[in-house]
Amino acid sequence: MDRHRLKELLEGVARGDIDVASATESVASPPFVDTDHARVDTHRALRHGFPEVVFAPGKTAEQIISVMQTLHAAGQQALVTRVESDVASRICGALPAADYDADARLLWLGPSETPIEGKGTIAVISAGTADRPVAAEAVGVARRFGNKVDLLQDVGVAGIHRLLASTEVLRSARVLIAVAGMEGALPSVVGGLVDKPVIAVPTSVGYGAAFGGVAALLGMLTSCASNVTVVNIDNGFGAAYVASLINRL
Amino acid sequence: MDRHRLKELLEGVARGDIDVASATESVASPPFVDTDHARVDTHRALRHGFPEVVFAPGKTAEQIISVMQTLHAAGQQALVTRVESDVASRICGALPAADYDADARLLWLGPSETPIEGKGTIAVISAGTADRPVAAEAVGVARRFGNKVDLLQDVGVAGIHRLLASTEVLRSARVLIAVAGMEGALPSVVGGLVDKPVIAVPTSVGYGAAFGGVAALLGMLTSCASNVTVVNIDNGFGAAYVASLINRL
Amino acid sequence: MDRHRLKELLEGVARGDIDVASATESVASPPFVDTDHARVDTHRALRHGFPEVVFAPGKTAEQIISVMQTLHAAGQQALVTRVESDVASRICGALPAADYDADARLLWLGPSETPIEGKGTIAVISAGTADRPVAAEAVGVARRFGNKVDLLQDVGVAGIHRLLASTEVLRSARVLIAVAGMEGALPSVVGGLVDKPVIAVPTSVGYGAAFGGVAALLGMLTSCASNVTVVNIDNGFGAAYVASLINRL
Amino acid sequence: MDRHRLKELLEGVARGDIDVASATESVASPPFVDTDHARVDTHRALRHGFPEVVFAPGKTAEQIISVMQTLHAAGQQALVTRVESDVASRICGALPAADYDADARLLWLGPSETPIEGKGTIAVISAGTADRPVAAEAVGVARRFGNKVDLLQDVGVAGIHRLLASTEVLRSARVLIAVAGMEGALPSVVGGLVDKPVIAVPTSVGYGAAFGGVAALLGMLTSCASNVTVVNIDNGFGAAYVASLINRL
Amino acid sequence: MDRHRLKELLEGVARGDIDVASATESVASPPFVDTDHARVDTHRALRHGFPEVVFAPGKTAEQIISVMQTLHAAGQQALVTRVESDVASRICGALPAADYDADARLLWLGPSETPIEGKGTIAVISAGTADRPVAAEAVGVARRFGNKVDLLQDVGVAGIHRLLASTEVLRSARVLIAVAGMEGALPSVVGGLVDKPVIAVPTSVGYGAAFGGVAALLGMLTSCASNVTVVNIDNGFGAAYVASLINRL
Amino acid sequence: MDRHRLKELLEGVARGDIDVASATESVASPPFVDTDHARVDTHRALRHGFPEVVFAPGKTAEQIISVMQTLHAAGQQALVTRVESDVASRICGALPAADYDADARLLWLGPSETPIEGKGTIAVISAGTADRPVAAEAVGVARRFGNKVDLLQDVGVAGIHRLLASTEVLRSARVLIAVAGMEGALPSVVGGLVDKPVIAVPTSVGYGAAFGGVAALLGMLTSCASNVTVVNIDNGFGAAYVASLINRL
Amino acid sequence: MDRHRLKELLEGVARGDIDVASATESVASPPFVDTDHARVDTHRALRHGFPEVVFAPGKTAEQIISVMQTLHAAGQQALVTRVESDVASRICGALPAADYDADARLLWLGPSETPIEGKGTIAVISAGTADRPVAAEAVGVARRFGNKVDLLQDVGVAGIHRLLASTEVLRSARVLIAVAGMEGALPSVVGGLVDKPVIAVPTSVGYGAAFGGVAALLGMLTSCASNVTVVNIDNGFGAAYVASLINRL
Amino acid sequence: MDRHRLKELLEGVARGDIDVASATESVASPPFVDTDHARVDTHRALRHGFPEVVFAPGKTAEQIISVMQTLHAAGQQALVTRVESDVASRICGALPAADYDADARLLWLGPSETPIEGKGTIAVISAGTADRPVAAEAVGVARRFGNKVDLLQDVGVAGIHRLLASTEVLRSARVLIAVAGMEGALPSVVGGLVDKPVIAVPTSVGYGAAFGGVAALLGMLTSCASNVTVVNIDNGFGAAYVASLINRL
Repeated sequence: MDRHRLKELLEGVARGDIDVASATESVASPPFVDTDHARVDTHRALRHGFPEVVFAPGKTAEQIISVMQTLHAAGQQALVTRVESDVASRICGALPAADYDADARLLWLGPSETPIEGKGTIAVISAGTADRPVAAEAVGVARRFGNKVDLLQDVGVAGIHRLLASTEVLRSARVLIAVAGMEGALPSVVGGLVDKPVIAVPTSVGYGAAFGGVAALLGMLTSCASNVTVVNIDNGFGAAYVASLINRL
Repeated sequence: MDRHRLKELLEGVARGDIDVASATESVASPPFVDTDHARVDTHRALRHGFPEVVFAPGKTAEQIISVMQTLHAAGQQALVTRVESDVASRICGALPAADYDADARLLWLGPSETPIEGKGTIAVISAGTADRPVAAEAVGVARRFGNKVDLLQDVGVAGIHRLLASTEVLRSARVLIAVAGMEGALPSVVGGLVDKPVIAVPTSVGYGAAFGGVAALLGMLTSCASNVTVVNIDNGFGAAYVASLINRL
Repeated sequence: MDRHRLKELLEGVARGDIDVASATESVASPPFVDTDHARVDTHRALRHGFPEVVFAPGKTAEQIISVMQTLHAAGQQALVTRVESDVASRICGALPAADYDADARLLWLGPSETPIEGKGTIAVISAGTADRPVAAEAVGVARRFGNKVDLLQDVGVAGIHRLLASTEVLRSARVLIAVAGMEGALPSVVGGLVDKPVIAVPTSVGYGAAFGGVAALLGMLTSCASNVTVVNIDNGFGAAYVASLINRL
Repeated sequence: MDRHRLKELLEGVARGDIDVASATESVASPPFVDTDHARVDTHRALRHGFPEVVFAPGKTAEQIISVMQTLHAAGQQALVTRVESDVASRICGALPAADYDADARLLWLGPSETPIEGKGTIAVISAGTADRPVAAEAVGVARRFGNKVDLLQDVGVAGIHRLLASTEVLRSARVLIAVAGMEGALPSVVGGLVDKPVIAVPTSVGYGAAFGGVAALLGMLTSCASNVTVVNIDNGFGAAYVASLINRL
Repeated sequence: MDRHRLKELLEGVARGDIDVASATESVASPPFVDTDHARVDTHRALRHGFPEVVFAPGKTAEQIISVMQTLHAAGQQALVTRVESDVASRICGALPAADYDADARLLWLGPSETPIEGKGTIAVISAGTADRPVAAEAVGVARRFGNKVDLLQDVGVAGIHRLLASTEVLRSARVLIAVAGMEGALPSVVGGLVDKPVIAVPTSVGYGAAFGGVAALLGMLTSCASNVTVVNIDNGFGAAYVASLINRL
Repeated sequence: MDRHRLKELLEGVARGDIDVASATESVASPPFVDTDHARVDTHRALRHGFPEVVFAPGKTAEQIISVMQTLHAAGQQALVTRVESDVASRICGALPAADYDADARLLWLGPSETPIEGKGTIAVISAGTADRPVAAEAVGVARRFGNKVDLLQDVGVAGIHRLLASTEVLRSARVLIAVAGMEGALPSVVGGLVDKPVIAVPTSVGYGAAFGGVAALLGMLTSCASNVTVVNIDNGFGAAYVASLINRL
Repeated sequence: MDRHRLKELLEGVARGDIDVASATESVASPPFVDTDHARVDTHRALRHGFPEVVFAPGKTAEQIISVMQTLHAAGQQALVTRVESDVASRICGALPAADYDADARLLWLGPSETPIEGKGTIAVISAGTADRPVAAEAVGVARRFGNKVDLLQDVGVAGIHRLLASTEVLRSARVLIAVAGMEGALPSVVGGLVDKPVIAVPTSVGYGAAFGGVAALLGMLTSCASNVTVVNIDNGFGAAYVASLINRL
Repeated sequence: MDRHRLKELLEGVARGDIDVASATESVASPPFVDTDHARVDTHRALRHGFPEVVFAPGKTAEQIISVMQTLHAAGQQALVTRVESDVASRICGALPAADYDADARLLWLGPSETPIEGKGTIAVISAGTADRPVAAEAVGVARRFGNKVDLLQDVGVAGIHRLLASTEVLRSARVLIAVAGMEGALPSVVGGLVDKPVIAVPTSVGYGAAFGGVAALLGMLTSCASNVTVVNIDNGFGAAYVASLINRL
C-alpha cells in the first residue's frame, strides 16, 4: 500500500465503486497467514522477488512441514536451509515432492528446474576443503534463485598460484562470493583481482584463535579491498540471496 | 595479462614481430609507481573502474600530497577520505585545484562535475543526527563516483513512522545504504521494505554497551533481513564504493 | 523488622508484656528454613508478593522436590523454571499435584487457577518462531502471577507490516515484554509505538555473530527507544516477574 | 492513525463530508518537521506523554539550538541530556529562557516547575561518590517529568549498614533506580529488600577489570534479585524515563 | 639449596669431609622423580608444607594412579581434585586405600583423620544451591589440610537477611572463602562485615550474561571491599590452599 | 550490633536501667556521617582495623578535602590513593599537615611514623621498571598500615637469575605481593619458591595483546602455583590492604 | 615460473626450439591436481621442502584417503594431523602402509625412517602433563621432517627447579619449542635461559579464566623475553614446521 | 654456572687452588647491577649475543639515560626502542654520542657501523603506508644487530600484482618479516611464496573492527601458511630480534 494506491482506493470509495467495508479490509488486511507458531509471510515473493526461506535450526520437523504446506497452499515455492539429514528424512516422508541436497543441507519444494533469471554468472570461491558446506549452500541457493553459478574450491591464499590460475573464472563473473575460514584473507585477494562486488562469507572453520569464525569475520570487515561486503559467519544463504538480487539488476 | 594476451604475445615473438626484450618487459613490468613511501597503483582505474582512493589517517599531509601528485601525473583523479580540516588546509595550500567537503571529510582532485554513470539511484538512509558524518561520506563518494543519490536522514526505528513516510524514496532506489549506530536496527527494517541490496554501515555513535559501534555491527551481521550485507564500522566510503559498483551493473 | 516495629517491641518489653527471651527470638529468628542444601526463604511471599521461584538447572530432581515440599509445608505455592521434561517426569512422580507446561518448561505446585490481580494486560511480543520457548516462559509466569496476557508471535522487524498490523494489541497493554534474538531490534520498534514500559528479553537464538544472544543484548541495551529496560539473555521469567510487579501498581 | 480512525475517515469520504485531497493528506502527512539535519518528532508528547529529549554528544550547539527552537515553536518543552558546560553556555546565550543543571548536565526549556503527575515516589540510590553524576541525571530527569524523588547516596554494599539504615526510604518508594559502578552489586541487595521494580544503572566508574562499566553491567544483568531490569551504562536518563512511565500507571 | 647451605658444603669439601662426587650430586640432583609422563615433585611437602595435589581433568585414570603411587612410595600423602565418579571408581579399584568424596569430587590417599594445624576457623560461605560443588571442594581441601571449617550455604545477597543472620559465624573466622556465581556480589558484602582476609571464588553458575563465571569474576575483582582477593573461576581448591597457608601463620 | 549485645540492651531495658528512647537510638543510629556528597564511614577503623581509605579519581579536590576533614574530626587517620600531583598540591594547600608521596601517589593525614603492628615482613616484588608506581603504592600503603616491607624490583622472569639471586628475601617474608604487567608470570615463579601466600597484582604495563593488563590478569588467575590470589589491575592498594590483614594474624 | 625461466622460454620460442602450444602450456599449466573436493598442491615439496600436510578435522576419512592417494601417486609423502583414532582405523584399513601415532594423533604415509636433515637439535619443552598431546604432535612432526628432537616434559614454572635442572638440554638445542597452557609462562623463562629462537605454543589446557588457551596465548604474545614468537593455540604442528625450516638453515 | 663448571670449581676447592670465600662468591654473585630503579642485566650480551634493549614507554628520560650509562660503563652497546622525539632530544642532550632514528623511533649508543654477522638477508615486507613506523623499527633493529636488510613497502594483498612483482626479493631472503594491519593477510600470501620462516607483525593500523590490531593478530595466528609465527601487535623490534637470531644460525 503506497500513496498512489491509497488515492485510487479513496477515489473509488468517493465514486461509490468501492464500498467502505471492503476498502477498509484492503487497507487493513495483513499480508500473512497466522499458523499456531508462525506468522507466515505469503506476500514475500511479491515484495522481494524470491520465495520465503525457512531457517531450520530451532524448529521441529512438524513446524517446518507446516510452514512449507502453508507456503505451498499459497502457491509459493519453499526453500529450507540448514536441514540436518535426519530432519530432512522426516520432512521428505511427509512431503514426498520435497528435494534434499545433503551437501548443502538444503530442502526444496517447487519445480525441479529454476529458469535462469540472473543476467550474469555468480562465482563462488572457497578457501579450503572444510569450507565446502558453506560454499555448497551458497551455490545451491543461487541456483534455486535462478542463477548460473561457477564454483572454484580449495584456492586459499597460502598457495596463491592456485587462485591466480583461475582469474578468468573470477573476471567473467558479475558478482562474486568468497568463502573462507581461519584468517579469511581470500576476499581481499579476490577483491583486488576484479572490479565487481565481492560478498565475503567468514566460516567457523579453524581452531584456537580462529574463535569460531571471528578471526575471519574481522579480517573480512577490515579488508583493504574496497569492493568487499560481509555477511554473518557461515551464512552462505545470505551471500547467495544478495548476489541473486544484484545479478537481477 | 591473461592467457589470451600471453598467447598473442608468444605468437608475435614466434613471428619475429615482437623482440624478446620488449616481450619480457611487457610480461614483467609492474603496473605501479614506487614513491619514497608508497607503491602507487596507477592501473587501478583500468582494473577497477574508479580512481585510487587514499585513506588519510596515519599519513602526513606531505605523503598525501605526494600520492595525489603521482596520480595526477598519471592522468588519474584522486579522492582522499577522512581528511581532518587542518590537514585539508595544508593540502589545499599545496594543491589549489583540490576541493574539500568538510562535512564528509573528503578531498577531491579532478573535474568538479562527475558525469552520471550509475544506472539508478543510490539511497542513503541514516538513523540519527550523530550518524551524519558517515552518511555524508557515503553520499559524497557515491556522487564523485558518478551516481544520483537520495539522502534520508534521522529516520531511526524508534519512530518508525518517520521511515514509513518515505518508503517511496526507499523503493525507487536501485541500491540502498543504511547507516546507524547504537542498536543498528535500521538496515533490518529497511531491508524488509525493499527488494534491492542493502549495504549496512554501523557507526561508532553511542556510549556504554554500544562499544564504539560493536553493538550496531553485530546487529547488522545478524539481521533477520536477508538482503543486507555489512561493511566496517564508520566505513561510509566502502559502502558507497560497493553501491557504485552495483549501480553500474 | 523496621524501626517502628522495634520500638513497639521494646515498649512491650519495658511494660513487661513481652519477656526478654521471646523478644530476642523475634528480633533474631531468621525468616528461612535450612534444608540440607538450601536456606529456603519462607517469608518471601510476605516480602515480595510472589511465591519463591526455583531455577532448576544445576539442581537434582531430589533437591527440587525437597524445596517444593518445604515451601508447600510452609503454605506457599511453588514455581520452578527451566525444567527439562525428564526432570519434570521424576518430580511429578513424587509430587502428583504438580503441573508441568512443557512448552514453557515451567513446573507449578499450587491452585490450578490464579485469580487476576494485575490491573491491565501484559503483552508478550516475540520476533521469530525460535524465540517461542522464552516467550512461552514469560507468558506462563505472568499468568501464574495473576495477569491477563496477550501473546503476539513471529512479528520480527524485517517484515514490519506484520507488527504494524497488531498495533492495537500493543497499545492496549499496560506493560510489554519484547522477546528477540539475532539483532534484537524488536524492542526498539515496539518501544517507539507505545507509551508504556517495555521489558526487552534478548534470546540466544541465532548463530555466528549472534554470539549466543550477545548481539541482541547489546542492541537492546543501546536501544534508541527510551522506554526499554533489559533483562538477561533468555530470561523470560525475569521479564514476567518485573512486568507483574508493574502491573500490580 | 489506527483502524478505527481510518474507518471514520473513509465513512466521511463516502458521505462526502471529507474531500479526497484532505483525507489523503491526513493519512499521509508525517508527524514530524524536517530541519536541515534532523527529522524532529513533534507528535512525541502525544504518543509518549513526555517531551522529545535530545542527547547532546555528537551534536553541535547550533544543532541543539535548532532542535530546541523547533520543539518550542511546536509548543513543546525540551530536555537536553549530557550537555557539557561550555556547550550549555553557548546554548543559554542563544536561548536565555533555558535552564542548566551542571551537576546533572541537563538543559531544560519549559516552565520552571513541573506539576507532580507520578503517583508515588521514585527512589534513586547510588553506591559511591563517583556515581553521583549519573544519579544526578536520573534525579533531574525524574523531577522534570513530574515525579517526587528521594535520593540516597554513597550506600555501597561493602558497608551494608549504611544501606540498611535507610530501608524505610527504599520501602516507601513506588519505583527504584539503583546506580552503581565497579561490581554493581547494589541493585541485587536493594532488589531483595523491596517488592517494587528496581531499574539498575551500571556506571563507568572503576578501573582495570571494571572495563568502563562492563563488570557492573554484567553483574546487574545476572542479578539474583528477580525484580531488577537494566539500562545502558551511565544511562541515568533512560532509568528515569522508564521509572516515570511506571510511576504514572 | 641456599647460600648458607652451599657454604657449608664447600667447607666440608675443603676439609675433606665430603668427597667431590657426592657434593656434586647433592648440588645437582633434582628434587623430583621422572615418570613416563610427569616430573613428580617429591620435595613439595618440604618446600610448601602441603602434599602434591593432582588436578585430574586431562589425565587418564592410569596416569593419576601412577602419580599417586609415586607420591605414596616417597612417603607423601596425595590429594586429587575434580575427579569424576567413573574415574574415581577405577582409581579406587587399583588403590583400595584411597577415599573418594563425590560431593567435592576429591580423592585422598593418606590417613583418614588430619590433625588440626590451622590456628583458627576457615569460614566457607556460598551464595546459592548451585554453587555447592565448588564450596564443597573448598571445604574438603581445607579439612584435609588440617583446618576447622564452618560452612554457610545459600546466603546470596538478594535475601540479605539470610546472611546477616549468621554474622557471628563470619566474624569468628580467621580467614573466609566466599563462593558465588551470577553477579558474584557475596564477597563484597561479606568483606564489609569482617576485618579478615576474604578469598573470593567466582563460579560458572548462571547463564547468558554470566558468561560461564566471567560476570562473577569481574565483579569480585572490582569489589569495593578492600579485603577481597580472587582466584580462578570454580577454583575452590586454590581458595582453600591459600586459606590454609594463612591459617597456619 | 550482634545478638549478644542486643540481649544485654534488652535486659537493661527490662531492668529499667536503659530507657526506651536511647535504646532505640542505640540500635538504630547509623555509624556514619552524611556529608553533602558522601556517607562517610566513621566506625570503619573499629570494624576493620584500618582507617578509611579514599580513592581519588572521580572526586574533586574539594570533595577529598571534605572527607579528610570529616575523618580527622572523628579522630581518624586518612589515606588517599591515586592522587595526581596537581590535585595533591591543592589538597596540601588546604590541609598543610597532609603528606604526599608522589612516587606512590599517596596522600596521608596522620602521625608521620606508624608503629609496626605486622608480625613479619611483607615482600613486594615487581617485574619491570614500568611496574614501579604500582609497587610503590603497595609499599607505601603497607608501611602506613604498620608493616615492615622489603622491596625487590626489576626481577622479571625472562632473566630468572635476577630473581633467584634474591630467594632469601622471598623466603623470609610472611606475605608476598608480586607485581607484574605484560605476561604476568612473576607470581607463578615466586609462588613456586615460597610456602607463604602470594598476592598477585597485574599492571596495565604493556601494549598490544597486553590489553591494558588483561593478559597479566588472566595469567595470574590461571597461575599453576596454588598459593596465588589476585586483585584488580594496578590495585597495589588492595594487595597491601590484604597483606596487612594477613600480617596481623 | 620466474623472470629468468620466462626469458629462457621466450628465447626457445624465438629460436623455434619450443613451439607456441607447449610454451603456452608450460606457462599456464597449474601445479596442482583437482580432485572432487580439493585442489591438491603437488609442487609443494618442490617449493617448500616438506610434503603437503593435511589437517584432518572437518574432512571425512574418504576425503583424507583420496588426498593421500593423490599425493602418493605424485610420488610424495603425506602427513595428516589431528587424526582421531576411529578415523585413523578407517584410513589404515584402506591404506595399510600408513602408520598411526595415537599419542600425537599423526598419520604418516612414507618411508618409516626419515633421514636427519636438520643441522642441530630441536628441544620441545612442555609445562604440564595435560599439554602432552600438543608436545607429542610437535615431536612427531619434527621427527618426520628429519630432525633430532629432545623432549622435556612437566617442567612448569611454578616448580622452577625442575626446569633449571635441565638447562643443558635447553642450551644445546638449535631451536626450541615451548608448550604451555594456563598462564603460559614457560616460554618467557625458557627464552631468558637461551640465545636461540623459541617458538611458543599456547595450549587449551586449563579452565575458567584460561578461556581455552587465550590466557596462555596473550601471555606468550606479551612475553618479556625477546626471542619468543608464537603460533596458534594447540598448534604443535605449526611450531614443528617452522622449527624444522629454521633447523635446515 | 652449569654442572661442568661447578665440578671444576669444587675440584679447585678440593685441591686448595681456590679458597672457599671466592668460590662462594663465584657461585653466588649476581650478573647484574642494581640501580635505583632497575636491575640492569650486564651479562646479557654474553648470554644472548645482543646488547640489552630498553623499551622506552613508561620510563622517564632520566631513567633511560641512567640505564644507558650503566650499560656503557659495562662496555656494552645500548639500543632504546619507541623513543618519542621529545624524549630523544633530552637524552641526546645528555648523551651526545647517542644516535636517533626518528622514523623508527630508535635510539642507539655504540659504534655507528655494525659489522654484518647475519649469514643471509632479512626481508621486511609491509602492507600499507601506515604500517611504515613498525616496518622501520624492524629494519632499524635488524641493521643494528648486524644484518643485511631488504625493505619492500606498500605491497598489500588487495593489489597482489605489487607483491608478485617482487617475488625475487622474497625468495632471496633467509628470514622474512611481514608487517600488516587491518586484515593482516600479507604473511599468509608471503608464507605461501617462500620456504623460509616468516615472522608476522600485526599492526594497530585500521579502525572499527580492526580493534587496534586484534583483527590482524587473529588473522596471522590462524594463517593457513604453515611457516608463519607471530609477535605482539606493533612489535617490530621483537620480529627483528628473532630474525637476527635465526640469521646467525
